[in-house]
Amino acid sequence: MSDTVLINVFEVPAEREEEFLQSWHAADALLRASSGYASTRLHRAVTPDARFRFINVAQLASVDTWKSVIASPEFRDISAKMADFHPSPGLYTVAVERDASQG
Amino acid sequence: MSDTVLINVFEVPAEREEEFLQSWHAADALLRASSGYASTRLHRAVTPDARFRFINVAQLASVDTWKSVIASPEFRDISAKMADFHPSPGLYTVAVERDASQG
Repeated sequence: MSDTVLINVFEVPAEREEEFLQSWHAADALLRASSGYASTRLHRAVTPDARFRFINVAQLASVDTWKSVIASPEFRDISAKMADFHPSPGLYTVAVERDASQG
Repeated sequence: MSDTVLINVFEVPAEREEEFLQSWHAADALLRASSGYASTRLHRAVTPDARFRFINVAQLASVDTWKSVIASPEFRDISAKMADFHPSPGLYTVAVERDASQG
């Protein structure tokens, strides 16, 4: 597994949540089929007025595979449907990691 | 541990990265001392032009404890120093969780 984390924040109006989720699941299926990522978590805001209603955090298995998937025509079609949600995908590394047992 | 995840995205200009990190570590120390969170990961963008240079993802041990810490005068002082970075803290639950082994 690579150390690269894909984080994507989405601005989704409440009334378009179902539409967003349909597209997200379609994108997720493409990435899973490609073995581009190792695991993913889609987070939903607890409060309805959050700036970002959904945030996806995925551990990438291969950055190159991920890049080839998002460049594919299938993925571009899905991306176009999600453009209204102002997706801001970024690749990240973990700069600091801590758990509460550390002093 | 609660199922609540705190995600905070930050817009940090490259030249203010050190200043941001100092404040982040001060906030982190307060939260750790309070047992408000169980673990945290600060993510740094791989590419310098990412919209959000830093994103923090923390598993909260207790939402109530976290709320009492962020309401404290010490935390408010740190928050004021970080206001320029447009922090957008939000509480989240995991809506979908998958790993690549799932079909």
